[in-house]
Amino acid sequence: MAFAGEIGRNNDKYVTSFGDKGSLPLPPSKKVAVLSCMDARFDSFASLGLSEGDAHHIRNAGGRFHPDAVRSLVISQELLGTREVVVVHHTDCGMLTFTSDAARRLILGRDNLGVEGKKEVERLEFREFSDLDQSVRDDVEAIKAHPLILEGTAVSGRIYEVETGKVRRVL
Amino acid sequence: MAFAGEIGRNNDKYVTSFGDKGSLPLPPSKKVAVLSCMDARFDSFASLGLSEGDAHHIRNAGGRFHPDAVRSLVISQELLGTREVVVVHHTDCGMLTFTSDAARRLILGRDNLGVEGKKEVERLEFREFSDLDQSVRDDVEAIKAHPLILEGTAVSGRIYEVETGKVRRVL
Repeated sequence: MAFAGEIGRNNDKYVTSFGDKGSLPLPPSKKVAVLSCMDARFDSFASLGLSEGDAHHIRNAGGRFHPDAVRSLVISQELLGTREVVVVHHTDCGMLTFTSDAARRLILGRDNLGVEGKKEVERLEFREFSDLDQSVRDDVEAIKAHPLILEGTAVSGRIYEVETGKVRRVL
Repeated sequence: MAFAGEIGRNNDKYVTSFGDKGSLPLPPSKKVAVLSCMDARFDSFASLGLSEGDAHHIRNAGGRFHPDAVRSLVISQELLGTREVVVVHHTDCGMLTFTSDAARRLILGRDNLGVEGKKEVERLEFREFSDLDQSVRDDVEAIKAHPLILEGTAVSGRIYEVETGKVRRVL
């Protein structure tokens, strides 16, 4: 069964214990945005001790800043008042396992890709990395250097260890 | 105190109850990617009944597909085997509260924006929306129509009600 068919029943349980969360305001109470990988094993709430209402959760393949997260962070800061960014990448990341060239070849090998698909894959930036600590430093520096990120924004970087659940500070 | 200073203590608690999660494999066990808004009030694990290891969590301002999530979904499908996408937008979304023109004027009003900042804000797509249900339909359709999304991908769309915790099906 597709996961879609499970959501109703799963969500009923959540609603039962929802409590007074319905009155939480729109702006994150801790004024923080977490930028992390989409990885299935990283729970950006539980592992960092965040509750509903505390922080923005921006997630993409690798937890990269550019190009996926620029729009989100600008909206987070300008319209919803966050002033801190925590970047979280993680061990055993899929982004460490391939190169853009190999990924492009894989996709170009599809039978039914078509002309549009070929164009799309040629211009897609995969943004993989080969050094995990360096990828965190790169994204922290890219955020600090971006002309639309507010001056004085506190930006730090961490690595989540999928083997232990530990979050280790990089910078 | 910045949130960064709280992470160590918060994470210690998570590690204590980590159990056997360290052996979870990289590919999501439910073969699903959840594409949702970054909103602080939406816990994409608890509200949908997802545990660590089950699904990719792709999140950005509004839960939009293009341009922020194309790269992530392609990697999720091609390299990590997901075959279903669940789009989740939500009530009281910040994306319903502004227009791109107003957001650009707000940012252009900064004292210290500089030449580069002005260029960046002129080309930034904010991707706001004025009709919540339609925004979900738009993103579901955009995913289905994209030439790099695999044929046969199950795509459905939902709205999370921040007032009640309920997840309502749109399509």
